[in-house]
Amino acid sequence: MPAAGKDCAQDAGLQRRYEQVRARSLELAAPLSAEDQCVQSMADASPTKWHLAHTSWFFEAMVLCPHSPSYRSFDERYFYLFNSYYEALGPRHPRPQRGLLTRPSLEEIHAYRRHVDAGVRRLLREGAGPAQAQVERLLVLGLHHEQQHQELLLTDILHVLWCNPLRPAYLPPGRAPAPPRAAGPAQSQRWLSRPEGLASIGHDDRAAAGFAFDNESPRHDTLLRPYLLGSGLVSCGEYAQFIADGGYRDPSLWLSDGWARVQAEGWRGPLYWVSENDAAAPRPADWEVFGLGGLQAMDPDAPVSQISFYEAAAYAQWAGARLPTEFEWEAAVDDPGLAQAMDSVWQWTRSSYDPYPGFRAQPGAVGEYNGKFMVGQLVLRGASCATPPGHGRHTYRNFFPAQARWQFSGLRLAKDD
Amino acid sequence: MPAAGKDCAQDAGLQRRYEQVRARSLELAAPLSAEDQCVQSMADASPTKWHLAHTSWFFEAMVLCPHSPSYRSFDERYFYLFNSYYEALGPRHPRPQRGLLTRPSLEEIHAYRRHVDAGVRRLLREGAGPAQAQVERLLVLGLHHEQQHQELLLTDILHVLWCNPLRPAYLPPGRAPAPPRAAGPAQSQRWLSRPEGLASIGHDDRAAAGFAFDNESPRHDTLLRPYLLGSGLVSCGEYAQFIADGGYRDPSLWLSDGWARVQAEGWRGPLYWVSENDAAAPRPADWEVFGLGGLQAMDPDAPVSQISFYEAAAYAQWAGARLPTEFEWEAAVDDPGLAQAMDSVWQWTRSSYDPYPGFRAQPGAVGEYNGKFMVGQLVLRGASCATPPGHGRHTYRNFFPAQARWQFSGLRLAKDD
Amino acid sequence: MPAAGKDCAQDAGLQRRYEQVRARSLELAAPLSAEDQCVQSMADASPTKWHLAHTSWFFEAMVLCPHSPSYRSFDERYFYLFNSYYEALGPRHPRPQRGLLTRPSLEEIHAYRRHVDAGVRRLLREGAGPAQAQVERLLVLGLHHEQQHQELLLTDILHVLWCNPLRPAYLPPGRAPAPPRAAGPAQSQRWLSRPEGLASIGHDDRAAAGFAFDNESPRHDTLLRPYLLGSGLVSCGEYAQFIADGGYRDPSLWLSDGWARVQAEGWRGPLYWVSENDAAAPRPADWEVFGLGGLQAMDPDAPVSQISFYEAAAYAQWAGARLPTEFEWEAAVDDPGLAQAMDSVWQWTRSSYDPYPGFRAQPGAVGEYNGKFMVGQLVLRGASCATPPGHGRHTYRNFFPAQARWQFSGLRLAKDD
Amino acid sequence: MPAAGKDCAQDAGLQRRYEQVRARSLELAAPLSAEDQCVQSMADASPTKWHLAHTSWFFEAMVLCPHSPSYRSFDERYFYLFNSYYEALGPRHPRPQRGLLTRPSLEEIHAYRRHVDAGVRRLLREGAGPAQAQVERLLVLGLHHEQQHQELLLTDILHVLWCNPLRPAYLPPGRAPAPPRAAGPAQSQRWLSRPEGLASIGHDDRAAAGFAFDNESPRHDTLLRPYLLGSGLVSCGEYAQFIADGGYRDPSLWLSDGWARVQAEGWRGPLYWVSENDAAAPRPADWEVFGLGGLQAMDPDAPVSQISFYEAAAYAQWAGARLPTEFEWEAAVDDPGLAQAMDSVWQWTRSSYDPYPGFRAQPGAVGEYNGKFMVGQLVLRGASCATPPGHGRHTYRNFFPAQARWQFSGLRLAKDD
Repeated sequence: MPAAGKDCAQDAGLQRRYEQVRARSLELAAPLSAEDQCVQSMADASPTKWHLAHTSWFFEAMVLCPHSPSYRSFDERYFYLFNSYYEALGPRHPRPQRGLLTRPSLEEIHAYRRHVDAGVRRLLREGAGPAQAQVERLLVLGLHHEQQHQELLLTDILHVLWCNPLRPAYLPPGRAPAPPRAAGPAQSQRWLSRPEGLASIGHDDRAAAGFAFDNESPRHDTLLRPYLLGSGLVSCGEYAQFIADGGYRDPSLWLSDGWARVQAEGWRGPLYWVSENDAAAPRPADWEVFGLGGLQAMDPDAPVSQISFYEAAAYAQWAGARLPTEFEWEAAVDDPGLAQAMDSVWQWTRSSYDPYPGFRAQPGAVGEYNGKFMVGQLVLRGASCATPPGHGRHTYRNFFPAQARWQFSGLRLAKDD
Repeated sequence: MPAAGKDCAQDAGLQRRYEQVRARSLELAAPLSAEDQCVQSMADASPTKWHLAHTSWFFEAMVLCPHSPSYRSFDERYFYLFNSYYEALGPRHPRPQRGLLTRPSLEEIHAYRRHVDAGVRRLLREGAGPAQAQVERLLVLGLHHEQQHQELLLTDILHVLWCNPLRPAYLPPGRAPAPPRAAGPAQSQRWLSRPEGLASIGHDDRAAAGFAFDNESPRHDTLLRPYLLGSGLVSCGEYAQFIADGGYRDPSLWLSDGWARVQAEGWRGPLYWVSENDAAAPRPADWEVFGLGGLQAMDPDAPVSQISFYEAAAYAQWAGARLPTEFEWEAAVDDPGLAQAMDSVWQWTRSSYDPYPGFRAQPGAVGEYNGKFMVGQLVLRGASCATPPGHGRHTYRNFFPAQARWQFSGLRLAKDD
Repeated sequence: MPAAGKDCAQDAGLQRRYEQVRARSLELAAPLSAEDQCVQSMADASPTKWHLAHTSWFFEAMVLCPHSPSYRSFDERYFYLFNSYYEALGPRHPRPQRGLLTRPSLEEIHAYRRHVDAGVRRLLREGAGPAQAQVERLLVLGLHHEQQHQELLLTDILHVLWCNPLRPAYLPPGRAPAPPRAAGPAQSQRWLSRPEGLASIGHDDRAAAGFAFDNESPRHDTLLRPYLLGSGLVSCGEYAQFIADGGYRDPSLWLSDGWARVQAEGWRGPLYWVSENDAAAPRPADWEVFGLGGLQAMDPDAPVSQISFYEAAAYAQWAGARLPTEFEWEAAVDDPGLAQAMDSVWQWTRSSYDPYPGFRAQPGAVGEYNGKFMVGQLVLRGASCATPPGHGRHTYRNFFPAQARWQFSGLRLAKDD
Repeated sequence: MPAAGKDCAQDAGLQRRYEQVRARSLELAAPLSAEDQCVQSMADASPTKWHLAHTSWFFEAMVLCPHSPSYRSFDERYFYLFNSYYEALGPRHPRPQRGLLTRPSLEEIHAYRRHVDAGVRRLLREGAGPAQAQVERLLVLGLHHEQQHQELLLTDILHVLWCNPLRPAYLPPGRAPAPPRAAGPAQSQRWLSRPEGLASIGHDDRAAAGFAFDNESPRHDTLLRPYLLGSGLVSCGEYAQFIADGGYRDPSLWLSDGWARVQAEGWRGPLYWVSENDAAAPRPADWEVFGLGGLQAMDPDAPVSQISFYEAAAYAQWAGARLPTEFEWEAAVDDPGLAQAMDSVWQWTRSSYDPYPGFRAQPGAVGEYNGKFMVGQLVLRGASCATPPGHGRHTYRNFFPAQARWQFSGLRLAKDD
């Protein structure tokens, strides 16, 4: 029987949404063998199996243990194994060793997921009394959290497959997620003219505006100068011209730290671009691009992806333009001329990931979700072909270090007007 | 004879200023032996001798070679040895090896300085014809550049002396630069109330406002919310309370990258704080502080210095406050209640070092001065006891990575109002 | 029909031996899941699956491709993936990335093994004509090679399991390989007195002495001085006394490089010894020992294992003794008083892994088997509980770097007489 | 007045020898500025000033403090600063930071030397009573120790000068130590035929054979097989042929660890060989060689120097020969046909630096002199142009890790007969 005051309809929606999101994680993992799901190709990325477990741990640690007195943990040792970075929730397995966890097996992780699912269903069914609203908020947070890991699951397994000289595909080209080609080749050439003035930025907590992460708040005004924004994303074809023009050999185009990376790591193109031509500046026709569908000829009309902030900024410099700030991006997102905003690749902005004016992290473990990472990273806006449907938002602030290259990350140009 | 159109009075001022600034570098080095001036204690820092040479190279490479046809370089190999980071000016000696340059000797560097000085004097005397205005701009830039290195000379030699178990002083305590004590102990407790509204930020290039670095432009408006700003700096005594309260052991106070540093490098207090008490959280009375005057008992009324951004942010978190943004700092700098703004220690802000709206790096080597470092660093505002007199500015944007600890860097608190 | 001159009986023996050795590799892997068999816990160790593939590659690359014209490779890309270190056989997959090969799957590796087996059987059946003797030599080499990898398979998976905080066992304690306890506690206390004189060392190639690796040749005389050799191995109980006596805290017991390791890596006992007591020198009763059977109380009568050369040498120093040379070991191996020589743990000697007088590596890829590793390593003698039955030899020279700790490696004491 | 039983003549000899050796250290440093003497170019090498201080510390710590009751230390902090690696004598300054000790100044180190010298002279004058013989042994050890550092002073400063792009010389070419050219170009082509049999190896402690380090004892017999030994050293001209023949590109010539170094560090020739030709295998005429006399054209008749063991072994492999063992070298050193044994470059042998049969380190700090380094290094025999006159010995065992390249180290070939 639902607790007094509970809104059954809302709960039914939450229950349905819970089932959908949880099922989708398993669907994403389904094309992968147990071996595929176990390994870790770099410290930044995590094994598929770990994603499946950690997202379950989140519900267990944040919702079930504090709020469901009848809940019994599946295995107490999992609190150590599958905590990602929550200092408030105790010690945890070192991140670079996640790929050594051949045990628990994939089957045991599946059982763990079912156990947690059963716990959540029971809690939803029986209600949490006075904590009901908080439980629902945490469940919603947990689902958005799981969706974030669904995207990471794809980008991380892509890196695993990339590290394999056999260049295996996650799914056949037609069925694998990939950034869609631009509607037309000329589209990315147009500049949208944007006026100066105050723009309202961020998620409005007071309105019934739906879920947002804490880093999208508070909503606040910011003053913009007039600017031009590219209507579309920079394409692979355009990016290949930048390479062929010596873009990776000209330090004057690069930020200092970026140029140091280019040299230290021998960058010649985006992370997953492959060329048999070992020249420093291969021609556009030389390139193949690795993706979830395997290795394919470079498509000049697809958006460039898997580039770092440094590369995005160098390209913009070469193109006589710049990257937009995250505020310019958000202010323009409703512009009817703006294409490829939310379904293609994340777009690096020229904004460091700083807290919004008035931001305060929430107390407790939940407060570690975003706030403690607000230094030394850059904001990406939009969403990508790997973002779960319905997860994106115009106020969404994705963030990665400037050198991160394994995401579906590209760019849109801007200019002062 | 001055070139037509030259403003003799202005030139005379420039000439006098040139002599003053150049002489001061040698005065700062005077207490140091040739050995002291040769070594390099870490890749981030440079030898005194290198500072003396590099600042001369700057005049040679930026002014004399392009604009003084009669100038002959002192030694062409110095272009390689003393270029710091200007890609446009050719290859250069690797930064971590600057301390291995026992040759040229200190005496040869002194001769190099005299040679460059003679060249500059001749150029000022003879004029540069149509390039006169540009030459003067570059000379002024070179003097501000040398002043920046004067501060680094002090912070870098302090690190050299710190690495020496003998703990030698640069000068006797009374004569060595040190952040002055606060005027009164209660001062740092007051909050200045600052209104919301548009604030004009940055250097106004159009006005006869004097010199500024390019990163301080363009002047632009930014919207501020109401805030409180600490009237004074956080003192050593207050910081020692933070330590004694377990500040370096509580991850909930720290940004994630900061906490990783605390653990990896065993931080227990500011870089130059020394305690025989090997407890994790020594008491205030346990501390001595190393400075240019050697090792001294910690003075509770002196501002805390030589801390990283991570430590500044953690302290603010512990104190129930936050760091101000660089905009909040600049908007309040003329507030009559604001103390210790420009003569004590640089003040970490909560602002990443991003370009101002409309910023564009200048073309050529000069454009590398600031722009290419605009990622992954934080802005510090104000000035320090090691900043040359007259070098500071209210619009000055100093910047260092979040982990940098060897500068005269402290903090001032802020709060939302 | 056998080729003219073929010795059918010998071939039948070879065929049977081939089947036995190949089958045993699969038996060893059988208790492990596909996930277990895929990962790599450190660059020195290899995944189980990789061992299964590489040992097959060895037959393919060394025997089938050069000597079986009808053989078709299973997958030509495997030549790159499963070459270990043979420069003469082309480029190869980087060693530290062996654990990222989720593809080929374990099932595909099983199919690869069957394909190679079929090829070898056909070659044995049809004969190799004039190359028959060489083929047989190479097959025998391949089987001994595979047996070496069988031991590594166990030591490497033990390290994988060790890295797992769940401390899983490879097999239940009773069924897992483990060094047997000494026959009696007093046995290890006896000194065997060995005379001075010339000793014949190494494998006699001219005699029908059976297989040996090239590094065991040529047989040669060496002059020994009178010495005492411990009749048994140093036990865990004895080693625990060394620890409790401060053995890991006293630099005077250690070689310089060893002491540097102790401090840099925080060694407090053998690699797999675990103690809840976090004292620097835990007592004997504090220890548990991890092995293929999982975590067990330390058995004082079991030989100490999984120690480095540095630890063996430090223990000997503490015990007022020294390690034997490999020549002293070999000269005494037939001494009727010598126990625990070949079935327990490898025994570190005080001999660097230098070439024997007159040693020359064979031409071609086979010559890379041993010779190119003859610098910077130490010789271990005997064999271990993980060595396949029949693989050990009195002239066998195992070798590892001084810091290697993940083998079944212990020690036997010696003294000058 | 000398103590009873003292042998005045012997003391007078010791006194004279002390003065000579101590004076020579200062003579070697004389061409260098205080700056030159302060810096450290890599962790393996030490500053000149540190050598001057450490050799004085050795007399202070080993002789004066224990045996001269009236001695007062110059500065107690120097015990920490100038201890090299003696664990028994307390903690010490980290080796990689020796180059940061701008204080004590060079002048202070000179005063420290004079202070220690005065103490030694007084002790020699007043005698040490019953400890007299031990004092004399320790003083003799201290002088040989100082002579070892005299050679290191030269090889270490050569590395400092090498790191300087100005390529400064220590002394003008004619006056700087350098390996002398071979007497005639054909000399190195002759093979000395050496018989099989027992050879007596090592220093005879019982005879009045003069000083030797502990690692040269005990004298013992070893059995040699017949061998051929090159009458002279491998010359630069021969080595240049090896390079031009692709020696640095052919893995089959190299030990495995050596080949890894070649690739990781981009070796193309000996450490100090310079070629403008950036081909992988420059021609002999392309090379210049840096030495204490600066950069000079490669002299084909000079012995190759500043090579690692890996390079020596690869060259021997290319030449169809091998390196001699240290026993073969010592057994042949009196052969009248042997040239360039003791005055040119140290000669890498194929012998690991293992203890001689019966070797035991002495108790106490002196026992740390050699014994604790007996693992992971190779023996070099002979002496070099940088070895102080009278310091070499036929039984001398020099040792360095296989990758060490900054010594005057070359090779002599050997072959089985």
